[in-house]
Amino acid sequence: MNTKTQITLDQIYAPIQESMTQIESTIVDILATSNDLTREVIRYFFSNRGKLLRPALCLLGAQFGKSDLKTVLRVASSLEVFHSATLIHDDIIDSSFVRRNAPTINAKWTPQVAVLVGDYLYDKSFSEIFGTHKQDLISLFLSTATTVCDGEILELREKDNFSLKEDQYLEIIEKKTASLLSTCIESGGMLASLPMEQIVALKNYGLYLGMAFQIVDDCLDFTGSQEDFGKTIGLDASEGVLTLPVIRLLSLVSENQKSEVFKIFKSNLGPEKLSYLQNLISEYGTVNYALQKAKDYTDRARLELSTLAECPAKKSLQTLLDFVIQRSR
Amino acid sequence: MNTKTQITLDQIYAPIQESMTQIESTIVDILATSNDLTREVIRYFFSNRGKLLRPALCLLGAQFGKSDLKTVLRVASSLEVFHSATLIHDDIIDSSFVRRNAPTINAKWTPQVAVLVGDYLYDKSFSEIFGTHKQDLISLFLSTATTVCDGEILELREKDNFSLKEDQYLEIIEKKTASLLSTCIESGGMLASLPMEQIVALKNYGLYLGMAFQIVDDCLDFTGSQEDFGKTIGLDASEGVLTLPVIRLLSLVSENQKSEVFKIFKSNLGPEKLSYLQNLISEYGTVNYALQKAKDYTDRARLELSTLAECPAKKSLQTLLDFVIQRSR
Repeated sequence: MNTKTQITLDQIYAPIQESMTQIESTIVDILATSNDLTREVIRYFFSNRGKLLRPALCLLGAQFGKSDLKTVLRVASSLEVFHSATLIHDDIIDSSFVRRNAPTINAKWTPQVAVLVGDYLYDKSFSEIFGTHKQDLISLFLSTATTVCDGEILELREKDNFSLKEDQYLEIIEKKTASLLSTCIESGGMLASLPMEQIVALKNYGLYLGMAFQIVDDCLDFTGSQEDFGKTIGLDASEGVLTLPVIRLLSLVSENQKSEVFKIFKSNLGPEKLSYLQNLISEYGTVNYALQKAKDYTDRARLELSTLAECPAKKSLQTLLDFVIQRSR
Repeated sequence: MNTKTQITLDQIYAPIQESMTQIESTIVDILATSNDLTREVIRYFFSNRGKLLRPALCLLGAQFGKSDLKTVLRVASSLEVFHSATLIHDDIIDSSFVRRNAPTINAKWTPQVAVLVGDYLYDKSFSEIFGTHKQDLISLFLSTATTVCDGEILELREKDNFSLKEDQYLEIIEKKTASLLSTCIESGGMLASLPMEQIVALKNYGLYLGMAFQIVDDCLDFTGSQEDFGKTIGLDASEGVLTLPVIRLLSLVSENQKSEVFKIFKSNLGPEKLSYLQNLISEYGTVNYALQKAKDYTDRARLELSTLAECPAKKSLQTLLDFVIQRSR
């Protein structure tokens, strides 16, 4: 193993280290409630922290100018709260039972609890963002919320659509994932009152980063180990969600193999069937194809950074691109 | 049948008749989307109109002063959109298959579609209310959204709690139902720039109306016919939700009968068991007890109107109180 390439998020988060330690308590503060059940579910969900990539992007974006730290912290935390709401609802949609190596809310409680606690988190994130009274930020957030939801509905509609094209897939992941990552870093730039040109650069960086991030995530669904990945492996396929490695595979294989793949999708995917799919994907190198696409997006993201002054935050954003690609290894 | 008491919503809505005809098209406008699936689900859901009580309350509230009709229409429609989102999510929570005599979204599509389309409606209602740029209205709406959600989580937590007290029940229905009805009419008053005293009177009127409305609704779960009620009869009981007629019953019956009632709640409620419960409720007159409570609330609501000038809208609000009580017959 080449230790040089083992980038950690701690390294990337170094310029915002102090703020990052306050994200959790800010989230707790935003979500304070006298409702026992809500509090218990929230404590459970947030005790198992994710990468906190969204608040980190907001904080990093704000590093390029001057901003009110307290406001940036509230916004960064609200973005994580919003993202958490989508995760909680996603887990109902995907019938996921494991996230971050722990039972999901719908598994530990019920889908009903997950619907309502997700709604509660939505409400609170909207309230908090509105509390900034910053019109441009609020508008951006509201339109992104709609876009994310639209992307998820598109994904749901295209389940089991074996004719799904690569550009449709890219539209879905842009909406459901990249749009929010983009908005996180753009929000930071807005709060730091950066010149429009730089805000657009950050926005685009976030978008390309998000595309790469989701493509890698979709590859890990086939190549990851559950322990590292923190989610159920093969879940997308078992749920009929076609991702880039499979879309590419279907464009390459013979008609016979295609109907085999269809059968796998239509059946309850067991370990053997998953491994058939994994072998085919490996044989045709379609994970590599997808990872090359991800790499292309990180290259485009890197280019966007060129208009920004050299600083520790810029270095972090560059390293984050390497980190995203490294995840796939 | 005494025809004198047969109040219709058309009579009540007479002062706002023209605006009411525009609610549907305004909702369609607010929810416009290029996403086929979303559009199809939305068209289906709104083709089967409910009572439109929430937009009507907003419009009636605005009648007591001068306001920009277009803004009132957008806000009134957004409140219905928000309410629809809660209904769509509620139907997942209650596993309801029938609403307004038609299959629910989770029945006709899937619970997954219902989660996401509900989220979409939430997003759009927030966006639209935010679009008014009226700080007091936005704050009111955001806090109400949280209250409604909190009430629903409370209800969920208290499912199968056979020790539920009347005041806990009242807290739940105040949060989940009355708070929004109150906010609807208060919003109308705000948009008409009424004096604070009158806004508070409308707010209180809405709260008491909402309490009465929900208590009657809960009684109809035992006494209604599915055709008139538009929902599955006995659903609350079958889902373990204790409402006033049952809470009162449990405080009156013998220990033996209490354990019979428990058994009913813990079993899959069939027609026979439901009818056992209905007989017991009838024997102990607990629906009548609950309806008297509802009547008390409408009396309090009526008192609140005394500070408001006589006008057709005030007459409508008075008649609406009679209508709510009439529903129970």
